Amino acid sequence: MIESVYKEERGLEHYLDNSATTAVSRAAADKAYEIMTSCYGNPSSLHNKGLEAERELALARRSAAAQFKVNADEITFTSGGTEANNLALFGAAAARRRTHKKIVVSAVEHSSVLEAAKRLEDEGFAVTRVSPRSDGIIHAEDVVAAADSATALVSVMLVNNETGAVMPVEDIFAGVKAKYPQILCHTDAVQAFGKLPVRARQLGADLISVSGHKVHAPKGVGALYVKKGVRLVSRQCGGEQEKRLRPGTENLPAIAAFGVACREFALEENGRIAETLNRYARERLSRIEGVVFNSPEAALPYVLNFSAGRVRSETMLHFLEEAEIFVSSGSACAKGSPSHVLSALGFSRERADSALRISFSKHNTIDDIDALCERIEIGLRVLAHR
Amino acid sequence: MIESVYKEERGLEHYLDNSATTAVSRAAADKAYEIMTSCYGNPSSLHNKGLEAERELALARRSAAAQFKVNADEITFTSGGTEANNLALFGAAAARRRTHKKIVVSAVEHSSVLEAAKRLEDEGFAVTRVSPRSDGIIHAEDVVAAADSATALVSVMLVNNETGAVMPVEDIFAGVKAKYPQILCHTDAVQAFGKLPVRARQLGADLISVSGHKVHAPKGVGALYVKKGVRLVSRQCGGEQEKRLRPGTENLPAIAAFGVACREFALEENGRIAETLNRYARERLSRIEGVVFNSPEAALPYVLNFSAGRVRSETMLHFLEEAEIFVSSGSACAKGSPSHVLSALGFSRERADSALRISFSKHNTIDDIDALCERIEIGLRVLAHR
Repeated sequence: MIESVYKEERGLEHYLDNSATTAVSRAAADKAYEIMTSCYGNPSSLHNKGLEAERELALARRSAAAQFKVNADEITFTSGGTEANNLALFGAAAARRRTHKKIVVSAVEHSSVLEAAKRLEDEGFAVTRVSPRSDGIIHAEDVVAAADSATALVSVMLVNNETGAVMPVEDIFAGVKAKYPQILCHTDAVQAFGKLPVRARQLGADLISVSGHKVHAPKGVGALYVKKGVRLVSRQCGGEQEKRLRPGTENLPAIAAFGVACREFALEENGRIAETLNRYARERLSRIEGVVFNSPEAALPYVLNFSAGRVRSETMLHFLEEAEIFVSSGSACAKGSPSHVLSALGFSRERADSALRISFSKHNTIDDIDALCERIEIGLRVLAHR
Repeated sequence: MIESVYKEERGLEHYLDNSATTAVSRAAADKAYEIMTSCYGNPSSLHNKGLEAERELALARRSAAAQFKVNADEITFTSGGTEANNLALFGAAAARRRTHKKIVVSAVEHSSVLEAAKRLEDEGFAVTRVSPRSDGIIHAEDVVAAADSATALVSVMLVNNETGAVMPVEDIFAGVKAKYPQILCHTDAVQAFGKLPVRARQLGADLISVSGHKVHAPKGVGALYVKKGVRLVSRQCGGEQEKRLRPGTENLPAIAAFGVACREFALEENGRIAETLNRYARERLSRIEGVVFNSPEAALPYVLNFSAGRVRSETMLHFLEEAEIFVSSGSACAKGSPSHVLSALGFSRERADSALRISFSKHNTIDDIDALCERIEIGLRVLAHR
């Protein structure tokens, strides 16, 4: 059986929205607290109090780098995944704008990539958006066909946040680099980090974004892997922190906690938990009339997107929360607006409008799925007539 | 006598570098911990776990707004002072670049203002930098003379971070607005916040930047006051957080802790502590041969900049840290480089090179000053011959 220490503390809560954000692990929260109250120096200060903080910063950087299997000096800490994605896109575009005024992104990226691309388009860049095929996947040949010799950057996420679809980023980047070696390849790995191995060299990535609060570290921290030799123009201007690529006093409580979270990663063990939960959920949900799955079969097991009958997502979401069951309607980042991801997959409006996303962490149990399914069954009976 | 609960916990430590960063207050750190482990929802989530987080966000926003005496919806949270300053400068410049391609800043601003101005200059803006007069102060008439009808923004800090000089921002903005009502007036109030009243209407400011970690809140949070009706272009692109002006999942642990810190402000009481410490420090230091003060007489009492004989700042700094006395050589944000502020004041290279900055919080005591002065006296004897 899957056990969880957190479960008892949380009482009857069924938190199935771990792709939106996660509870910070005890060890990570304790580290943040220690930094706030005891190791509170400014890493830029020249005295011991600063050096002590600088050492914590360096330790966290090594812990993050180890996950990517890269050198510590290839890691730049940011305020989160959004800033990491922005730094990748704007930083690469600014560094190359004189000679390369085109970028290629997938149509199902997170808003922090899509909106950055739109801003670049407003500034005169050509932007090509590659749609997934009917299998929910971005195909390498489609990305390669969209790229050209004027392309500065290709950005394709590793795992989609709404469906859990795992994109063949390794193949995509290999295809792009084979034809256009100069193109910088960026992947938003926010939903993959801590769940799948995210190895920079193996992926062939020049730039990789990750976020702390999706992996049991606090909100307010993210990181961008920048391959040695790749030049970006900083987006933020100020002091000399993060080799001037990301000026501003480092968010050390969150960064050090992020380092702890990285050291706590247990990809295989947690992957087995997610697989068990996912299999059980698919099996139970498929027995409920009117449920269809929107996640591909081969999706990351941590995420399961499905549509339940004709009940609108938000109606069901609020019905579930009455029983302390917390799920998402599409992406939490786009409060209320229809999902651009499900639209890009060609699903009907009705299906998209009734979509729910459940997403697991190591703290979830079979009990959470049982509670969810029982409640959905009741909801379909009760709410269909409203 | 000035007492401090923190003192005992810190043992023999004499932390006199509070303008670089501060220890997080117990109540603020406890709040951050609670948010990380218990109220960990994403404020963008539609369920109760998200609403609970959203309520904490709203409470913190009201607490920050109360300090400026403005409406809560005029506060935008950022990742810190640097991002707030960047958002003010880039945001105003981008909103007005078609018609107003000039900005005016003081020459003694923080690097997050000066470097942003330099970036804008590279992008085709005209930038005028106004120097302080020999009193260390930026004069209103000099700023008004530098502005013109093509000016988008004027940015002058409220308190200088190296000397504690208090700039007549109210007069400066009144002078600017009288002649050019269209100019946006921004003040970097990072070093003033929590120490002086920072009232937006009274200052006549359109934009005000502050930072959490200078006021016993954690690193990783800051805020920008944006006067109702003032349009800025966001610097970061992504989701709908902070009314799209600052997308990205909110750093709720730090933001909520910042709210607590704002509610703990005790301007008058702490001001009296700082005045006592400052008066005592000036009196004791002035008895040491070779000490000259670089802070103006009328500076904020929390900051005291002085030069000690011919001993280089960093040499003395490390000699002091051996006795657990932590001070700054110029600004912690500009590790190692000569101070642009002391240069702008016309001090000799020798005087600037031996400058030390001490900066107080409510946790400091007379004992810290005694320890400092005794150690400096020894240092001047021992180090002068090295």
